[in-house]
Parts: sequence; C-alpha cells; structure tokens
Amino acid sequence: MKQLSELQELITDAVDNLKFPAQPADLYEPISYILALGGKRLRPALLLMACDLFGGDVESAIEPAMAIEVFHNFTLMHDDIMDKAPLRRGKVTVHEKWNSNVAILSGDAMMVEANRLMMKVDNAILRPVLDIFNDTATGVCEGQQIDMTFEQQANVSIDEYLNMIKLKTAVLLGGTLKIGAIIGGAATADAQLLYDFGVNLGIAFQLQDDILDVYGDPYKFGKQVGGDILSNKKTYLLIKAIELATGSQADELNHWLTVQEFDATEKVKAVTSIYNQLDVRQYADEAMQTFAEKAFTALDTINLPEDRRQYLRQFADNLLVREY
Amino acid sequence: MKQLSELQELITDAVDNLKFPAQPADLYEPISYILALGGKRLRPALLLMACDLFGGDVESAIEPAMAIEVFHNFTLMHDDIMDKAPLRRGKVTVHEKWNSNVAILSGDAMMVEANRLMMKVDNAILRPVLDIFNDTATGVCEGQQIDMTFEQQANVSIDEYLNMIKLKTAVLLGGTLKIGAIIGGAATADAQLLYDFGVNLGIAFQLQDDILDVYGDPYKFGKQVGGDILSNKKTYLLIKAIELATGSQADELNHWLTVQEFDATEKVKAVTSIYNQLDVRQYADEAMQTFAEKAFTALDTINLPEDRRQYLRQFADNLLVREY
Repeated sequence: MKQLSELQELITDAVDNLKFPAQPADLYEPISYILALGGKRLRPALLLMACDLFGGDVESAIEPAMAIEVFHNFTLMHDDIMDKAPLRRGKVTVHEKWNSNVAILSGDAMMVEANRLMMKVDNAILRPVLDIFNDTATGVCEGQQIDMTFEQQANVSIDEYLNMIKLKTAVLLGGTLKIGAIIGGAATADAQLLYDFGVNLGIAFQLQDDILDVYGDPYKFGKQVGGDILSNKKTYLLIKAIELATGSQADELNHWLTVQEFDATEKVKAVTSIYNQLDVRQYADEAMQTFAEKAFTALDTINLPEDRRQYLRQFADNLLVREY
Repeated sequence: MKQLSELQELITDAVDNLKFPAQPADLYEPISYILALGGKRLRPALLLMACDLFGGDVESAIEPAMAIEVFHNFTLMHDDIMDKAPLRRGKVTVHEKWNSNVAILSGDAMMVEANRLMMKVDNAILRPVLDIFNDTATGVCEGQQIDMTFEQQANVSIDEYLNMIKLKTAVLLGGTLKIGAIIGGAATADAQLLYDFGVNLGIAFQLQDDILDVYGDPYKFGKQVGGDILSNKKTYLLIKAIELATGSQADELNHWLTVQEFDATEKVKAVTSIYNQLDVRQYADEAMQTFAEKAFTALDTINLPEDRRQYLRQFADNLLVREY
C-alpha cells in the first residue's frame, strides 16, 4: 500500500502538468489559477488510495482522480460567487480577480473537463463510473441549494441538517472512494461498502468541524474560533441549541441571533456559554460517534486483507482525531 | 422518413414528461420552468432526424435528444445571467424570477442531467457519443467567452467572428446531428459528414440572422429590425463595415458607435445607409453562400439514398430561405 502523502504528491504533479488551451484566455486562465491555489488534494488522493486498496494500477487512476479535483474546484468557483467570498485559500477568488461572468463560464468549462477526465477509464467500467460521478454531482448541487435555503429558513431540523451535509460534502467523499475501488477492480458490493464508509466518515468529519469551530484550539484548527457563531451559521450545535433552549436561554440565544451590532468576542463567549449549559457539544460528539461507527461497520465488512482494512481504519482515525 | 414537425412533437411530449424531484424546490423548479418556455425544439428534433436518416429507431434517440435540449437550456440559463437579460421567450428569466445564485446552481444541475440523459445509449456507442457531447459543450463555452470578449475588443476580424459563431452556435448543430447519426447506426465517415453539414449550415444560418437583423421584414423576422445596430453588436455586417470604411464614412460610423444619446430610428437609418454605401450586405450574402455550399458539398458526399439527401437539402433550404 502506498502512503497517502505519496499519493497526494502524485496528484500535485498531475495538477501541475494539466494544460489547458491558451485561448480564450478568460475561459482557461481561471481554471489554471484555481487549480494552482493548492489545498491538500485529499479527494483525488483518496481515489488513488481506493484503487490501490484493491490492487489496481494507481497510474491508471490518475486522470479520474484529477476529474474529482477539477470537479471539486468547479464547485468552489461557483460557490464562491454565490457566497460572495473575497478569498479562497488566502488568494483572491476568481469572480473577484476577473468577474462573475468569467467565474460562471470557467466553472462550466471545468465541469465539462471533469467529465472528459473521468472518461479515461476502461470501456468495461465507463458506465458505472460515470453513473456514480453524475449521482455525486447531483448530490453536491442539491446539498449546496439546501444549504443556501437554510440561510432563509427559520427552523432547520437535525435530520434536515444531516441530510444537507451528507449531500454537500459526504457524498463526494463516498463517490470518490467508490470510483477508485471500481477502477481498482473491486467487486460491486465492496465498492458500495467503501462508499458507505466514505459517506458516513464524511458526515462524522463535518460534525467534528462544527465542534472544532467552537471548541477547537485555534492554533491547531487553523480557523478563527467561533466563526460559525459570528455568522449565525446553522451548524449541528446551533440547531440543537435552538431545539433545546427554553425560557430565558431561548430569549438570550434569539437575542444573539438577531442583534445587528455586537462585540465579536462577547457574542462568541455568550453563545458558547449557552451551548455549554445545554450540553450541545455532547450531543454533537455522540452524533459524530454514531456516524464514525457506521463508517467502521461498513469498513469491517469489506472483503479486503486485514492489513488493508487496518490502513483504512488508521486513515479514518487520523481524519477524525484532530486536536481540540 | 418522419417529418420534422412530427419529430418536434415527439420532443415536446418528452419535455412535458420530463420529471425532476420536488426537492430542493429552488434547484429543480427553475429547470422545469425554463424547459416549459417552449421554443421550436429544433435541435433535439434534428438529433431524431439524423437517427431516422440512417434507419435508426427514433424512440431510442429521444433521451439523447432531450440531453441536447436540456444542455441548450442550461447554456441559456447561464447566458441570461451574464447578459443580464430580463426576458427569455417573452417570460421572466430564471435569475430575475428567482436570483442569480439559483440560476447558477440550477444550470449546473441541468448540465449533470444532460450528461445523464446523453448516457441513455447502447454501451457500444457510449464513449463516442459522450466524446462528441463534451467537445460540443467545450466549444459552446469557448464561443460564449469569445463573444463576451468581443464586447471589450476594439478590432475583431472577420475570421475571429466566423470562429466565434462556429463555436457558439454551429458546433452544437453539428454535434447534435453527429450524435443522432451515430445512434442511427451511421458509419463514422458519414456521421462526420453530417457534422460538417451541420456546422457549415449553422454558420450560414447565423450570417443570415445578421443580415435579417438589418434587412429583414420585421413582421416575418419576429424581431426588432436594427436591434444589433442599436446595441453596437459586432455582427458580420458591422465588422465588415469597420474594415471597409474610410474617411468621412469611418468618422460617421465611429460617431454612431460611440454616441451615448441618440434617436433609435435615426441611428438604424444612418448605420444602414453606411452599410448600403459599403455593400456589406453583399459580402455577408457571399459569405453565407460560401458556408451553405460547404454544407451542401458535405451533404452530397454522405452515403445515403438520394431521397434522404433530398430531404436534408430541403431542410437546409427551408432554414436558409427565410423571407427578407
């Protein structure tokens, strides 16, 4: 088994070598620009890992892995327009550096390029691979739309929230692993189990992210603690707190959710205090554990040598036990 | 051979029966909305026609034909955002009825849906069909970007213009016919000839559109005469006029291209008069004839019974000889 870091390097090299036509410059330069912003290249590396797990030729999976990276960056380019985000990975976003029209159209061209890269598989698996890819892409679009709707929606239930994060982030993780497994020669049932592993791990990972936003060590987490609280983002913690709060706690929470002018430190402190009183962190931890266990259950059933299952377990442990 | 009107009806029924999930509503309602705006459904009907020409089963081509219709409407949805268009076929555009974010994301979901519909072909032709579809989609994106760039570009050459209209509109016509031919069982060479027929016919058709905008009968053309002149749209006529005008003619043309406040009728009359003095209509007519002849040359070489070639000739004649 190759190490994940080794696979990430393979991807980094492949991204560096991905060439687009010179013209029209405003269509292709933004694609090269966003792909060069970097990132961990975790998703494409996972596709290679899944292929490697089943004894497949990692080299033959590089273009489909690039398809996942190009697709993911296409969604980021369009999401950044929708979110009016000025920065992506510390650099100016495409719609700010060029304009929204360029970002819309370059994103569209990236989606086509992703399809083209995903087709670089043997004819025998072309249809199943593209079926998974299309289902994944639809899921991501649905998740993004549901997330945008949440901003205007007064009451979001925990189930709705879990469905949203499943579609918006976890399905891509699952689909990526499943495609890699199929390229690697996995049986359909095993590829599906790896999908289940990925989806549940993805949900657990997102729940951990919600927890870390409030309770994480800012130096290790690498984000501003309380960012979600300041933007009233409907995370697992906030949704649970709204569900549980009554009387003066509900009033206070509602005050912080509606007040227009506030001191940032004070708001984070006050909302965190309500979270603590309501024990929402514990609920979130339990939910995260539930999905992690589902992931491990799927993993235990995959028909793979024990050392490879152990490798996957290790990977999941590393992903979930970030310091906080 | 089925009549084109009959094929258009088949498509209209299929569009009516195309169902999307109810949720998320803001993702799927705009798709149903734009598809219900109607239009001639010419492109998907042409896919069926191409299939029928080679003796294929038209029913088996309906989903790929729908893919073309969904893809085309996806590009319209995104183009309307970029052009800030308030209306599409007399109805409010998606980004106006909902908002730009909805139009971006629904368009993305349509692109995925188009891919899914295009995959409803036999395994034996899945790869060639998708290859053509991806090349077509890339062409359309490139054409749209070049067209947007033209708005900021001082000098556009006739060759650049012809390349733009080829990519923006003609390649889709060619790709649609080629896919239909392949589904109908055409040999590769014949499918390619039908592609050449479609691309050249598409360019001729667009040139005719440029001429009709100035010289068309407004009652038969169905558009405001001189709309391109009023918006300084870089059409074949304008580009040729800029190329040919010298001295006071050039000054007068430049005046009308830069003046901010003007009487619409006066501007159309003055620019048309310059066009007449420079004979640009004749140049445009000749260019149109050149591409029409290229289309007919390709057609004459296709290995099909003479009555079917005649059918195609008739179709092209109907498309090109609109009253003006």
